Amino acid sequence: MMEKAENPSLLIEGRNEVIEAFRSGRTIDRIFVLDGSHDGKLETIRREAKKAGLRVDYVDRKRLDELSESGNHQGVIARAAAYSYASVEDILERAEKKQEAPFIFLLDGIEDPHNLGAIIRTADLAGAHGVIIPKDRAVGLTATVAKASAGALNYVPVAKVTNLARTMEELKDRGLWFAGADMDGKVMYDCDLKGAIGLVIGAEGSGLSRLVKEKCDFSVRIPTKGNIDSLNASVAAGILAFEIVRQRMA
Amino acid sequence: MMEKAENPSLLIEGRNEVIEAFRSGRTIDRIFVLDGSHDGKLETIRREAKKAGLRVDYVDRKRLDELSESGNHQGVIARAAAYSYASVEDILERAEKKQEAPFIFLLDGIEDPHNLGAIIRTADLAGAHGVIIPKDRAVGLTATVAKASAGALNYVPVAKVTNLARTMEELKDRGLWFAGADMDGKVMYDCDLKGAIGLVIGAEGSGLSRLVKEKCDFSVRIPTKGNIDSLNASVAAGILAFEIVRQRMA
Repeated sequence: MMEKAENPSLLIEGRNEVIEAFRSGRTIDRIFVLDGSHDGKLETIRREAKKAGLRVDYVDRKRLDELSESGNHQGVIARAAAYSYASVEDILERAEKKQEAPFIFLLDGIEDPHNLGAIIRTADLAGAHGVIIPKDRAVGLTATVAKASAGALNYVPVAKVTNLARTMEELKDRGLWFAGADMDGKVMYDCDLKGAIGLVIGAEGSGLSRLVKEKCDFSVRIPTKGNIDSLNASVAAGILAFEIVRQRMA
Repeated sequence: MMEKAENPSLLIEGRNEVIEAFRSGRTIDRIFVLDGSHDGKLETIRREAKKAGLRVDYVDRKRLDELSESGNHQGVIARAAAYSYASVEDILERAEKKQEAPFIFLLDGIEDPHNLGAIIRTADLAGAHGVIIPKDRAVGLTATVAKASAGALNYVPVAKVTNLARTMEELKDRGLWFAGADMDGKVMYDCDLKGAIGLVIGAEGSGLSRLVKEKCDFSVRIPTKGNIDSLNASVAAGILAFEIVRQRMA
């Protein structure tokens, strides 16, 4: 689900324009190509997308026309990231410089830009060192996210990775433990959240994916007791983050 | 700031239509009248609005045209509430029936419908008995709020009051204590949040209004430590609500 970008310059439309954007090194977030079309320039775009580890979304003309702001997309629309991404290494270095045990948010498929913005805002105020998001099936750093972050995006490094489960595996070798937010987990007050920690938050609605859940060292639960299924993802992330803060303060 | 209603039937346009809506007992949330216009029917609408304790917003033609969905507003547009409101008494009765000390959210001017929806969702899952919102300068129960509440609006009574500070005064006589969310307050872990409590959350950006803040028995603070000013309002409400849950569990 691609929302209309608030800043028109974030949408790049047309074959030559998209090729140019790739070659200039701009960070592209999403790419939409008219289903069934083939030619040399589209082939170049597919190749550049592959190099960037980006999945191409094939859509029908109606969808492209809806997304288009220029009315002249020539079968290709790309969306540039509003902010640039950090690396996972940048996040770990930030913790090291502060001489703190790493505290990282990992978001397993957050699609709502308001939620991502609110979580980046929480990450700043909870003293976390960064946020890791996956490349696919998730919102990236769009203008709406930047706005919802209320300025926090200027302070919190956000890394985008191809495979969240693999990144978790690598971070385990660096001493991190992973707590996955899950309704079937242990109540958060009974979990030890004090060391080097990755807090893993699932997608709105569907929760943690199987592969990511398997990589978690334990599952942690907010003691809810109402009639509906779950909290808003950014609210849940905030409550868990400040339980980590509470335990670290104690 | 009135968002476009998602459900077109929530907008009522035209003099006769708005008078009819008032007389049929529908809950009207907002009412917009063309500035400078006068006639008998508009006089009736003003009178009905006054009876309902509703402020009339006088706006220019451009604004009305923007809001209009029918293109035929005749100088008057009203917006019906998506859900009906409960009374403060309903909320207190709910606590009594459950034989629990009342736990109520009071929202001092939340304008973002996603935040209001997320807070109603949190109220359900934290076991709160209801939410109180003010009539003016705040979003009401629109279709967007209902959607963002993820079904919680079917369970959590929401009361709309003319004067939040006066309602707090009345609730003090019924034994409630009020904790106002404020950056200058005492850290939440050091506050006693176990009894009959009203958790008061300020508006996005501006926080608690002076009058409401004066009615609070104490101020409570989330121990934030980042670079930006404040958490998203619904995230802050969630963190404070679950600190209340934690203390009540202990």
